[in-house]
Amino acid sequence: MIDKNTNLLVVSAHAADFVWRGGGTIAKYVKHGANVSLLILSYGARGESNALWNMEGQTLENVKSTRHGEIEAAAECLGVKDIEFWDYQDYHMEINNERVERLVHKIRKVKPHHILTHGPKDAFNPDHETVSKYVFDASVLSTSNGVKLEGTTTVKQAQIFGFEPHQSEISDFKPEVILDITETYERKEAAMNCFKAQPHLIDYYGWKAKMRGNHARRCSGEKEYKYAEAFTRFFPYVGGEFI
Amino acid sequence: MIDKNTNLLVVSAHAADFVWRGGGTIAKYVKHGANVSLLILSYGARGESNALWNMEGQTLENVKSTRHGEIEAAAECLGVKDIEFWDYQDYHMEINNERVERLVHKIRKVKPHHILTHGPKDAFNPDHETVSKYVFDASVLSTSNGVKLEGTTTVKQAQIFGFEPHQSEISDFKPEVILDITETYERKEAAMNCFKAQPHLIDYYGWKAKMRGNHARRCSGEKEYKYAEAFTRFFPYVGGEFI
Amino acid sequence: MIDKNTNLLVVSAHAADFVWRGGGTIAKYVKHGANVSLLILSYGARGESNALWNMEGQTLENVKSTRHGEIEAAAECLGVKDIEFWDYQDYHMEINNERVERLVHKIRKVKPHHILTHGPKDAFNPDHETVSKYVFDASVLSTSNGVKLEGTTTVKQAQIFGFEPHQSEISDFKPEVILDITETYERKEAAMNCFKAQPHLIDYYGWKAKMRGNHARRCSGEKEYKYAEAFTRFFPYVGGEFI
Amino acid sequence: MIDKNTNLLVVSAHAADFVWRGGGTIAKYVKHGANVSLLILSYGARGESNALWNMEGQTLENVKSTRHGEIEAAAECLGVKDIEFWDYQDYHMEINNERVERLVHKIRKVKPHHILTHGPKDAFNPDHETVSKYVFDASVLSTSNGVKLEGTTTVKQAQIFGFEPHQSEISDFKPEVILDITETYERKEAAMNCFKAQPHLIDYYGWKAKMRGNHARRCSGEKEYKYAEAFTRFFPYVGGEFI
Amino acid sequence: MIDKNTNLLVVSAHAADFVWRGGGTIAKYVKHGANVSLLILSYGARGESNALWNMEGQTLENVKSTRHGEIEAAAECLGVKDIEFWDYQDYHMEINNERVERLVHKIRKVKPHHILTHGPKDAFNPDHETVSKYVFDASVLSTSNGVKLEGTTTVKQAQIFGFEPHQSEISDFKPEVILDITETYERKEAAMNCFKAQPHLIDYYGWKAKMRGNHARRCSGEKEYKYAEAFTRFFPYVGGEFI
Amino acid sequence: MIDKNTNLLVVSAHAADFVWRGGGTIAKYVKHGANVSLLILSYGARGESNALWNMEGQTLENVKSTRHGEIEAAAECLGVKDIEFWDYQDYHMEINNERVERLVHKIRKVKPHHILTHGPKDAFNPDHETVSKYVFDASVLSTSNGVKLEGTTTVKQAQIFGFEPHQSEISDFKPEVILDITETYERKEAAMNCFKAQPHLIDYYGWKAKMRGNHARRCSGEKEYKYAEAFTRFFPYVGGEFI
Repeated sequence: MIDKNTNLLVVSAHAADFVWRGGGTIAKYVKHGANVSLLILSYGARGESNALWNMEGQTLENVKSTRHGEIEAAAECLGVKDIEFWDYQDYHMEINNERVERLVHKIRKVKPHHILTHGPKDAFNPDHETVSKYVFDASVLSTSNGVKLEGTTTVKQAQIFGFEPHQSEISDFKPEVILDITETYERKEAAMNCFKAQPHLIDYYGWKAKMRGNHARRCSGEKEYKYAEAFTRFFPYVGGEFI
Repeated sequence: MIDKNTNLLVVSAHAADFVWRGGGTIAKYVKHGANVSLLILSYGARGESNALWNMEGQTLENVKSTRHGEIEAAAECLGVKDIEFWDYQDYHMEINNERVERLVHKIRKVKPHHILTHGPKDAFNPDHETVSKYVFDASVLSTSNGVKLEGTTTVKQAQIFGFEPHQSEISDFKPEVILDITETYERKEAAMNCFKAQPHLIDYYGWKAKMRGNHARRCSGEKEYKYAEAFTRFFPYVGGEFI
Repeated sequence: MIDKNTNLLVVSAHAADFVWRGGGTIAKYVKHGANVSLLILSYGARGESNALWNMEGQTLENVKSTRHGEIEAAAECLGVKDIEFWDYQDYHMEINNERVERLVHKIRKVKPHHILTHGPKDAFNPDHETVSKYVFDASVLSTSNGVKLEGTTTVKQAQIFGFEPHQSEISDFKPEVILDITETYERKEAAMNCFKAQPHLIDYYGWKAKMRGNHARRCSGEKEYKYAEAFTRFFPYVGGEFI
Repeated sequence: MIDKNTNLLVVSAHAADFVWRGGGTIAKYVKHGANVSLLILSYGARGESNALWNMEGQTLENVKSTRHGEIEAAAECLGVKDIEFWDYQDYHMEINNERVERLVHKIRKVKPHHILTHGPKDAFNPDHETVSKYVFDASVLSTSNGVKLEGTTTVKQAQIFGFEPHQSEISDFKPEVILDITETYERKEAAMNCFKAQPHLIDYYGWKAKMRGNHARRCSGEKEYKYAEAFTRFFPYVGGEFI
Repeated sequence: MIDKNTNLLVVSAHAADFVWRGGGTIAKYVKHGANVSLLILSYGARGESNALWNMEGQTLENVKSTRHGEIEAAAECLGVKDIEFWDYQDYHMEINNERVERLVHKIRKVKPHHILTHGPKDAFNPDHETVSKYVFDASVLSTSNGVKLEGTTTVKQAQIFGFEPHQSEISDFKPEVILDITETYERKEAAMNCFKAQPHLIDYYGWKAKMRGNHARRCSGEKEYKYAEAFTRFFPYVGGEFI
Repeated sequence: MIDKNTNLLVVSAHAADFVWRGGGTIAKYVKHGANVSLLILSYGARGESNALWNMEGQTLENVKSTRHGEIEAAAECLGVKDIEFWDYQDYHMEINNERVERLVHKIRKVKPHHILTHGPKDAFNPDHETVSKYVFDASVLSTSNGVKLEGTTTVKQAQIFGFEPHQSEISDFKPEVILDITETYERKEAAMNCFKAQPHLIDYYGWKAKMRGNHARRCSGEKEYKYAEAFTRFFPYVGGEFI
C-alpha cells in the first residue's frame, strides 16, 4: 500500500516525459502520501521543443526558461514538490563517470523503493535509451558499499519501471505492469495542459489512457478501471503471493 | 492477501509436476486459507515413471495405482484436499474439443483467481507444452457466455502462471514472479519425499529453491527470503501500484 | 496502384474482425476499383457475441442470424459485395485437411495478390492464431501444382498481411505496414456502427486509427495522414525500389 | 570420430530434402564407416514435384515412382544403403499417435547418436515444421521405458540437428553447427544431379555450399574449408572441452 | 518511382561496403535519375585492407590512397558522382558529439528520402554496429529544429535501410526489403572488380545476388527477377496500399 | 583434445569471476597440459567486495591487496601460473581505444584458441556487459593486419565462450556448451574457498555445478557426469562432424 513510507524517484530525460508517460501514477503516489522526487535531466530544449523554436527570435535561454515554468506548473498539478533540474544538454545526451556518480548520490539520498524512468528501447529517441542505461547503472552502483560517495550510504536495490515510449510496438514495448489511474486522471489531464505547445500530444495520451484502461479491464476482469498507464519492469517481481 | 476468498486451480500434466514446480506455493496458499483445487491430467505412467517400470512384472495398472497413492500422499503433505484425476494418456497427450470443454467446465466450477500450470515451452517435454496451450484456451473460453455448458456460468479471466521447467534456460524460461516459500519449504520437502523413486529430483529441487531464494534476496534487497519458487505470467500485472 | 486488376482476399475468423482491424483499408481498395472478396469463417457466435447472449431466450440460430445481418450491413458500408459465410464453429475453431483444401480452392478462385487475415499471435484469442496458420498453409498449397483440386489451377504466392490484434503489444504485434485510411475513415466508422452491441469497441478503434495516424506522420514526415491502420507482413517486401 | 560405431538417422520430409540440405554430411558419415539410416516420410508428390506435374498425362502413381527412383539413385551417390519409404501424404502432412509410435519404434531400432532432420521453422513449408516437431516428440518418447513398444527397448537421447531451410533468414535460421564437406562435395553434387527436374536448385545449393565454406573459414581461421553445410542443434553441446 | 526528385544518401563505414552490399541498388537509383550522395566514413585501412598490408613496405598513407582510387573507380562504375571521404580511423571507429553534428549537417544538406547504411548487428564487425547507431542518431537529430546548425534547416525523417552483413544469419539479419537489381547487375559486377585484392568477395557477392534473386522469385511469384539485394528497414512502411 | 598446444585466455572483469563461472574448466585445461593465461581486469574493489568494506577502517589499497592475495591463492588451486592484473577501476568500468589496443596486444601474444569471458548480458552487472564487448572487439581487431602494434603479428580468430552470469535466466543466459568438470570439481571447490568473505556464493556455485551435471546427463544420456559448467558461444561451431 502506498503511504508516507513509500519513496518514488522519477527520472525524466526531457521536460515533459514524466507527464505523458507517468503523470497519473505520480499523482496517485502523491495523493496517497508517498514521497515523490522528480529529477529532470534536461529541458528537452534541442529535441522536444519544436513549437517554441518556431517563434521568431527564440533563444536557448528562453526555451529553457519556458520549459522550466511548464514543468513546475505540471508538477504542481500532480502535487509534486521535490523537483531537481540538472540541465544536461539533450539531443544527444552524453553520460560519463561523474554523471553516474551524481545520480548514485541522488539515489542514495532519496532511497527510492521504486524508480520510474525510460525503458531500454525507443525507436525514435536515442536520449531515452541513454537515460535508461544511465539509471540502471547508477541504481546498481548505489547498492555497493565499495562505491564511496561522501555523505551517503548504500541503499537496497530499487525496483525500476520503464515508461511506455511514444511508438510503443515500434519500440518493442510490452506492458508488464498496468496501473489504474482512474482516480487521478483529471490531474494528469491538467498537467498535460501545461504544455500548451503540444495539443496533439494531449489528445494522444488521452486515447492511450483509455486504451490501457480497456486492457486493464480485459486482463483483470475488473470493470471499474477507466484510465491506466503501462510500464515495463527491469527485474522480476518478488513477493509472497501471486498478484 | 491470501484468504478463504482466494481460489487457486493447479493443473499438473503428470503425477508430480505440481510438487517439484509449485509445492511450496501451493502449501502456502493452503496454509493461509485459500481454496486450492488440484487437477492431475495424467499419472505420467508412460513418460515419468521410469523407476517403476524397472521393476520386474510391472503393469500399467500398477504404475497408475502407485502414482495415485504417491500423489495423494504428497497432496496431503501440502494440505490439499480437493484433487481430481482425469487419467489422460501421457507421452504424448492429445487434446480435442471435448477435453477443452471439460476443462472449461472445471474452471467455471472452481472460479479460480489464479491458475498455476505449465508454461509454453519445455525443451524436453512435449506434454508440458500441450497442457500449457490447453489451459490457456480453456481459460479464455471460460469467460465467454456463448460457450454454453450445462450448469455453468462464465467467470472472470483467471491470471495464469507458468511453472519453471526442469531445464530452465534451455526451455527459454525467464522468471517473472518469484515467490518466497520459506514458511512452507518443509512441507514441500515432505511432499517431494513421497516420490521415493526419484531421489535425485528431491536434491535437485532443493538446490533450485535455495538458488531462487538467493535471487529473491538480490532482486528485492530483503534478507529473510531463504527458499523460493519462480514462475512466468501469461498476462501483464494489472493493479493499483508498483509491486 | 490499386485498380480493377487488384484482387484482395480478406479472411476473418469471426463476424466483425474485418471491420475493426481492416475496415478502412478494405473500403479504400473497393473505392479504387479493386476486387475484394470477404470470407467470414465463423459468426463468432460462441466467442464474440457476449452482448447478444445477455438477452433472455437467446438461441444459437438467432445469434448467427443477427450477426449475419450485421456483417452484411457492415460490408455494404465498406462497399464489399462478394462475401462468403462458412459457418465454422468458433471458440475454438478446428482445422483439418478438408478445410485446408476448401480454402486452397477459394484462393485459387479469387487469385488474390494480397491476403489480409490474422497474424500469428493473439494473447487472448486462440481462434485468431488458428486462422493465421490456416491461411498461411492454404496459401502455400495453392501455389503447388501437385495439389490437385477439380476446376482449379495454381496461383502465384499471395502476399499475406496480418491484422493488428486487440491488445497489440501484449500479443507481440509490431507494425510493419501502416496504411493511410483518411479518405475512407468515415466508411469504417459507419461499418463499425453496424455492430451496435459493442459501442466500447467503436470508440476504441477510433482512438487506434488516430494513434496510427500519428505514427504514420512521425514515421514518414507526411502531415496529411489523419487515420491509419497497421499490419504485419508474412514475407519480405520484394520490388524495384525502396518504399 | 566417425566410425562403424556411429549411428546416424536422417529423416527427410520429402524426396530430396536430405540431399539439398545434408548430402555432403551424409556422404562423409558413410565414407568414414558410420551406419546411416535414411527415412523418407513422403515422396513430396503434391508439394515438391512441380516439374513432373507439368508433363501431360501425369499421375500420382507415376510421380511417386519417378521420385522413388531419383531418391534411390541419389542415395547411392552418397553411399547410403539403408532407406525406408513411408509414403505419407505431403502438403500437408498430418501426424497422429500411431505415426509417433512408428517413429519411436524406428529410433529404438536404429539407436542413433545423431538425428538429422528439419528445424522448427520454415517460412514457406508447413510440412517441414510438422516433421521437426514429429521427430523431436518421438525422440523424447524413445528414451522413456513407460512407452512400451513390442520388440524395442529404450535408447539414449539422440542429439538432433536441424537442416538449413531454403530461405534461411526468412525462416529465422541461425547456423549453430557448420560442417566441412570438402572431401565429399563431389558426391553431393552427383546426388543433386539425380533430381534433374530442378536444375536451378542444383546451382543454388552449390552457391550455398561455397558460402558456408567462406563462413567456416572466417569463423575458424582454417583456410582449407571449401564447402560446408550448416545446421541448428536442438540441445546444448555437452562434452569435455571447448570445441 | 525513382526520378530526379529522389534523394538517396549512402553511408559506408569502410571503403567497399557500399559496393558489396548495395552496389546494384545504388546503380539503379543513379540510372533512373536520382540524386545519390555517397559518404565514405573511413578507408577501412586498418580493418579491411588485409591484402594491401601483405605487400612489403606498405604504409598507411599508401593504403588510404590505394583505397581512395578504388572507391572512385567503383563509384564511377555505379554512376555516382557525389562522394565525400571523412577519413575516420577504423577498427575501431569512435563517435562523439562533434561527429554526430557533422552528420546531421550532411543529412540536412542532402535531404535524403532514403538513407542506406549498416544495420544494427554485425557478428564480426564492431565498426558496422557503431555506424548503424551513428546514422540513426543523426537522422533523428536532423529533424529537430532545436538542433541548430549554421546554414541548415530541419528535414523530414529519412527512411533508413540496413545493408546485409557478410555473415547474414550469424548477424541476425532478416531480409525485410529485397530489391531487384537485374538491370544494373553488370554495373555492380564492374564496381566489385575495382577491388582487385579481394577476388573471393567478388564471387561471394555474385552468389548472394543470385540467391536473393531466387528468394525474390519465390516470395513474389515474379519470374523475371534474376539478381537482387536484401536490406532491413528501421521503421515501418507507411503508405497508401499493400506493397 | 586438450594438450600443450592448446592456448586458453581467460578474461575476468573482477577478482573472482573466473572461479565462480569457469574454475572447473580452467583447472581441467591446466591439468591436461594447456597453456592458460588469466587476465584480471579489476580487483572488483568497488563493486564486488562488500564484505571487505564492512570492516572498519578499510581502505581501497587494502581491499585491492586482499583481493590480489585471494586471486593468487585461487589461481594456484586451479594450477594457473600466468596471471596479469590490469587494475582498471570497476563499477563502472570504462573502455577507450588505448585499452582496446592493450587487449589486442595481449591476445596476439597469447594466441588463444579459446577465450573465456563474460557473455553479452548481465541483468545486475554493467561491467560484465562492458567487458563482453571489449573482448569481442579486441578479438576481431587482433586478426586484422592493418591494426599495427609493435612486436605483434595477427592471430586466427579465437573462439569466444561466455560465462554463465549469476542470475542466469534473468540475464537471458542460454547454455550452448556444457562442460563436464567432474574430474576437477575439487579444485574448483578449493579455489572458491579462497574467497572466504562470500560463503553464500560457495554454496550457490556448488548447487549450480550439480544442476548443470544433471542437465549434462539428461542432454547427453551419459551417466558419469556429476559436475558441470555452462557457457554460451559467440560464433557457430565449425568442424568435421556432429558433436
